Amino acid sequence: MTTYNFCAGPAMLPTEVMLQAQEELINWHGRGCSIMEMSHRGKEFMAVAAKAEQDLRDLMQVPSNYKVLFMHGGGRGQFSAVPLNLMQPGKKADYIVSGAWSKAAAEEAVKFGGINTQQIQLKTDGVRSLTAEKDWQLDPQASFVHFCPNETVDGLEFTGVPDTQVPLVADLSSTILSRPLDVSRYGVIYAGAQKNIGPSGLTLVIVREDLLPKADANIPAILDYRLAAENDSMFNTPPTYAWYLAGLVFEWLKRQGGVAAMGQINQRKADTLYNYLDQSDFYRNDVAAANRSWMNVPFFLADDRLNDLFIAESEAAGLLALKGHRMVGGMRASLYNAMPLEGVQTLVTFMQEFERVHG
Amino acid sequence: MTTYNFCAGPAMLPTEVMLQAQEELINWHGRGCSIMEMSHRGKEFMAVAAKAEQDLRDLMQVPSNYKVLFMHGGGRGQFSAVPLNLMQPGKKADYIVSGAWSKAAAEEAVKFGGINTQQIQLKTDGVRSLTAEKDWQLDPQASFVHFCPNETVDGLEFTGVPDTQVPLVADLSSTILSRPLDVSRYGVIYAGAQKNIGPSGLTLVIVREDLLPKADANIPAILDYRLAAENDSMFNTPPTYAWYLAGLVFEWLKRQGGVAAMGQINQRKADTLYNYLDQSDFYRNDVAAANRSWMNVPFFLADDRLNDLFIAESEAAGLLALKGHRMVGGMRASLYNAMPLEGVQTLVTFMQEFERVHG
Repeated sequence: MTTYNFCAGPAMLPTEVMLQAQEELINWHGRGCSIMEMSHRGKEFMAVAAKAEQDLRDLMQVPSNYKVLFMHGGGRGQFSAVPLNLMQPGKKADYIVSGAWSKAAAEEAVKFGGINTQQIQLKTDGVRSLTAEKDWQLDPQASFVHFCPNETVDGLEFTGVPDTQVPLVADLSSTILSRPLDVSRYGVIYAGAQKNIGPSGLTLVIVREDLLPKADANIPAILDYRLAAENDSMFNTPPTYAWYLAGLVFEWLKRQGGVAAMGQINQRKADTLYNYLDQSDFYRNDVAAANRSWMNVPFFLADDRLNDLFIAESEAAGLLALKGHRMVGGMRASLYNAMPLEGVQTLVTFMQEFERVHG
Repeated sequence: MTTYNFCAGPAMLPTEVMLQAQEELINWHGRGCSIMEMSHRGKEFMAVAAKAEQDLRDLMQVPSNYKVLFMHGGGRGQFSAVPLNLMQPGKKADYIVSGAWSKAAAEEAVKFGGINTQQIQLKTDGVRSLTAEKDWQLDPQASFVHFCPNETVDGLEFTGVPDTQVPLVADLSSTILSRPLDVSRYGVIYAGAQKNIGPSGLTLVIVREDLLPKADANIPAILDYRLAAENDSMFNTPPTYAWYLAGLVFEWLKRQGGVAAMGQINQRKADTLYNYLDQSDFYRNDVAAANRSWMNVPFFLADDRLNDLFIAESEAAGLLALKGHRMVGGMRASLYNAMPLEGVQTLVTFMQEFERVHG
């Protein structure tokens, strides 16, 4: 049976990538061992690492004055790393709170400096939306502005970029590589790998060189952007297997036509599901159209006594991990790059049939 | 051709483990997706995680008043985490420097508190050795004593444990699970996974509960022992695939007879190589017999002009990654748990033949 995995993360990886990984798992390129059993400083892994970085640079058109870092610690690690690396003495940082993840980032940042938080998620007549970035109150003296363009738990997103001279820091964990983006507008972009990049345990950081911390900053070494940049992300042993898999995903993205092509298909996937939800009285999504996430679609059954049955029957039909986040309830379908359009169409067909039987 | 991989890390994993991982990579236990594509909070991965912890507890006989944590960031991450979690106000910490890694740990620790360092590696008549732990000068008021029982780069080790009431912190990255060890003698044991446990990117920490930091300590979340302990190592998304592979390695170790059996075979492997080195004038190891590492055996050719040829011919013979660390030169054979005795015997046979032809 063909299965489609809607997990919010760790999420599905492209089938082609997984088949290639399986084929070369125990004997990488005829070398007699796995890539995960090789020294990170050997010529084989160094080549894998360099190609992954270059492919990412190509895909995102990363300007040459930005470093690309492959780090440990997930998005949560960056919740600490961002203020540790970027907070300036005597200045505060602006934290835009649009949902669960940006709230968690702000809670971590207060350990390392003063911050201003700004709540931008609204609920009006049962519809959730976000304050547009032109209406954010920003401190022109802030060390940086932190925001999270796509909220994985809440299912809200925005694609705008605030107009400010202060460095912008974006948590792109759940939306990186899902469509084109102008890297030059940002000071730091970071993303835990386990949604659109690869397996958990790897974190991608793209940082403008002038924002690297001073050499004598007392930052834990594994969170220090300067140390990572000066050592090609190998000040310590990186998560090599995750890095290798990320490289396979980047190659796959290039074969799909890059992020512009992914943006078109991701929009189509999202439209397919939202259009169906909107014409149904049996299901509903409560996010304003302009702020609906392409990546994470929470939805609810009008009769939540049917939730367990929906989960059981969808799993039996090969539609995996549709249960909503514990903070939100209901259902959630995550539609990252690796999810094909057919997966969304199969989900909608299942939902139609479930509605026909139980509606 | 059968290959044997002597890499110091990321190191070889047991062949049985790699074959099992390959078989279930894309369809774990018939669930239609990979274990790396599953939520860390789903029942499937939670069961994998719990079993891995229990198997480790069984193997090491971890007392019930110790937490076992699966963390991000490698051994380097712990170089920061140890002082951040354990340093007491107004007290210093003792750092025993036996080689490259304990030196690096001390260099990181000074960012987070006062330390005393003690150099214990000696060189007498060209022979390197370590000061016995009974002769260490220890501060009875120290927050903790940090030491590294096996130095991967230097090829030196000791199995003694100093007699002190101060919490002992041991970096066991390259020797954990290689023989029996009394966990109750230690306050904290930590190990990067990529030598005796699994792939890089995962770090194992075993910490006595009374040493967990206060709840209001401003420690970066991914390095905070209390947060990890209170959230079963899932305060953030853990490196799930590495955790799963570690679990397969623990199951394999149980099938081998546990750490007592591994200790016997590891001693035999080390004896096989050192005995050969000692009777040869063509090769040499310069560590005193009492301080020779079972895990990492550096050795030198009397004529170092033959080094490149030795590397080329050994690789052609399927004996991989024997080149010495860049700080030491020469050769290094790492003999972690996954290296079978036949691998060492094959290496010695190759060395005999190389000596016969070039000696």
